[in-house]
Amino acid sequence: MYRKEIKVLDCTIRDGGLINNYQFSETFVKAVYAAACDSGVDYFEIGKKLADSDSYPRDKWGVWNFCDDDVIREVIDSHECEHRPKIAVMFDIGRIDLKALKPIDQTPFDMIRVASYVADINKGIDVVKTCKELGYETTLNIMAPSAAIERDLAEGLEETNEVAQLDYLYLVDSYGAFYSEQVTSYVELYKKYAPNKPLGFHGHNNQQLAFSNTQQAIIDGVNLLDATVNGIGRGAGNCNLELLLNFLKNPKFDVRPIYKVIQEQMVPLRETIEWGFNDIYGISGYLNQHPRAAMRQRGDDENRDHCYDFYLESRRLDDAAMS
Amino acid sequence: MYRKEIKVLDCTIRDGGLINNYQFSETFVKAVYAAACDSGVDYFEIGKKLADSDSYPRDKWGVWNFCDDDVIREVIDSHECEHRPKIAVMFDIGRIDLKALKPIDQTPFDMIRVASYVADINKGIDVVKTCKELGYETTLNIMAPSAAIERDLAEGLEETNEVAQLDYLYLVDSYGAFYSEQVTSYVELYKKYAPNKPLGFHGHNNQQLAFSNTQQAIIDGVNLLDATVNGIGRGAGNCNLELLLNFLKNPKFDVRPIYKVIQEQMVPLRETIEWGFNDIYGISGYLNQHPRAAMRQRGDDENRDHCYDFYLESRRLDDAAMS
Repeated sequence: MYRKEIKVLDCTIRDGGLINNYQFSETFVKAVYAAACDSGVDYFEIGKKLADSDSYPRDKWGVWNFCDDDVIREVIDSHECEHRPKIAVMFDIGRIDLKALKPIDQTPFDMIRVASYVADINKGIDVVKTCKELGYETTLNIMAPSAAIERDLAEGLEETNEVAQLDYLYLVDSYGAFYSEQVTSYVELYKKYAPNKPLGFHGHNNQQLAFSNTQQAIIDGVNLLDATVNGIGRGAGNCNLELLLNFLKNPKFDVRPIYKVIQEQMVPLRETIEWGFNDIYGISGYLNQHPRAAMRQRGDDENRDHCYDFYLESRRLDDAAMS
Repeated sequence: MYRKEIKVLDCTIRDGGLINNYQFSETFVKAVYAAACDSGVDYFEIGKKLADSDSYPRDKWGVWNFCDDDVIREVIDSHECEHRPKIAVMFDIGRIDLKALKPIDQTPFDMIRVASYVADINKGIDVVKTCKELGYETTLNIMAPSAAIERDLAEGLEETNEVAQLDYLYLVDSYGAFYSEQVTSYVELYKKYAPNKPLGFHGHNNQQLAFSNTQQAIIDGVNLLDATVNGIGRGAGNCNLELLLNFLKNPKFDVRPIYKVIQEQMVPLRETIEWGFNDIYGISGYLNQHPRAAMRQRGDDENRDHCYDFYLESRRLDDAAMS
């Protein structure tokens, strides 16, 4: 598959940081950034830009949860690169200090990605507008659409369609619940209600489908694709960047730096934190559940592989919730 | 996805046995058989039926490589089941004693699957004819079509099309090299040259695509699907049976016995043998290589995770082979 319009966004640090409260070392982040530069990816999302708060105190969270300008500049300056990727950062609705955001020429960031549930789309739109006025590229990443009432989602999409300040609208499979046919059906919905907006796709690997669903999104016309080195990310993780670059066949990409950083950085990291497919996340994705119950099960050494018990309990809770 | 014509073949023991020379315990095989029965799958492939030989001496290989009638009958008799799956066994061209095969009413087998490379399709057809004359359902599993010259494959397919004794023709992604678009393109080729033959699909998980490619085969009209419990199988393994049953939504299937046997049998087995996706198999699949180099790398404790070295070396060998 080759299509010149396709762009790739590496969200290794941002989505991977959800596993370890953004406690990656500077060495690690610089190595991943250098690999991203040399691989030719288009965007590099380096973390979240949350406000320091009672929920997110600086002593518990790593620097990639706050992304202070000087920290990020040091990463960028650590690697010479002819065509460096644009630097993206994520804003979570309700956890940011928007007033503190400076214009684009005074920060190291190029793109701001706004993550919002369907219920908060209008808040997300307001943030997008402010970011665009300050000069940034913008995305709106609508989380967990598979758990939304379709009419609510459609209304939200219609509103985003009118927002000239929004550059990309993201379809996000937060629960890892999509099969390829759902990707197609949601992309159709997004195109129907927000026909003006270029689309992005962000998958999760609960059912071993993050990579294949990303391919399906490409087939369905999506041109901005999220992926992470080695598929690192919360729970079952994301689409593997190295598999995606192999698939894309675009000569602007070079997969070798990605395999190099896997060998040198990811292999040792895999000894300390867990991500990727397993039976528990498979069930969670199939049942279109928020991954929190699955993550709790995986954190329980006694029961982490008890997929049969997890399946029965999940179905029992589903049934109980209906009564 | 629900289509009543779809049938599922559990090849856990046959493909899984490639990892450990078929040294599964009787307890393990009986537990997997019982789970298959209770889950409602249509076929259960219990091993290979190879002739005892210098290459396959009985003291090195487990009983599931020979599948003597009395051993298989004991498994079948170990579990009461209202609708038991049909029992399949695999024949490898050139490694069998066809003259020793008895008529269907004198053996525990219902289906014989004949595995053949493209070059041996005519030998495979001869075996299929003999098996059908003795009363068995038959399949011809053409191995590694992604490594065959398409004209040779097309000729072979045309010949199979005329063989009334052949019940199913299999598309096999032996190298785990297919993307969904290749599945579609090969299914079209098979339908063009062998339009009379119902098709089967057997995937491998080198690029995390065994399950999604099986979905694509379904979309493209394939009705007999191979899968294994927990995706066990040589190298990167196969399509996970539990994910497939979830996807199929057919009320005749019950996924619970599969999760139960995973929890009770597969979880401890995973401590002793390895299967499933990793970076090395991902590269091997992408490069459309026989998995032997990848398996060798994984067997080398020092280098098993050196994916960058493996990538460079594989490309170097490819380049050298061209000169």
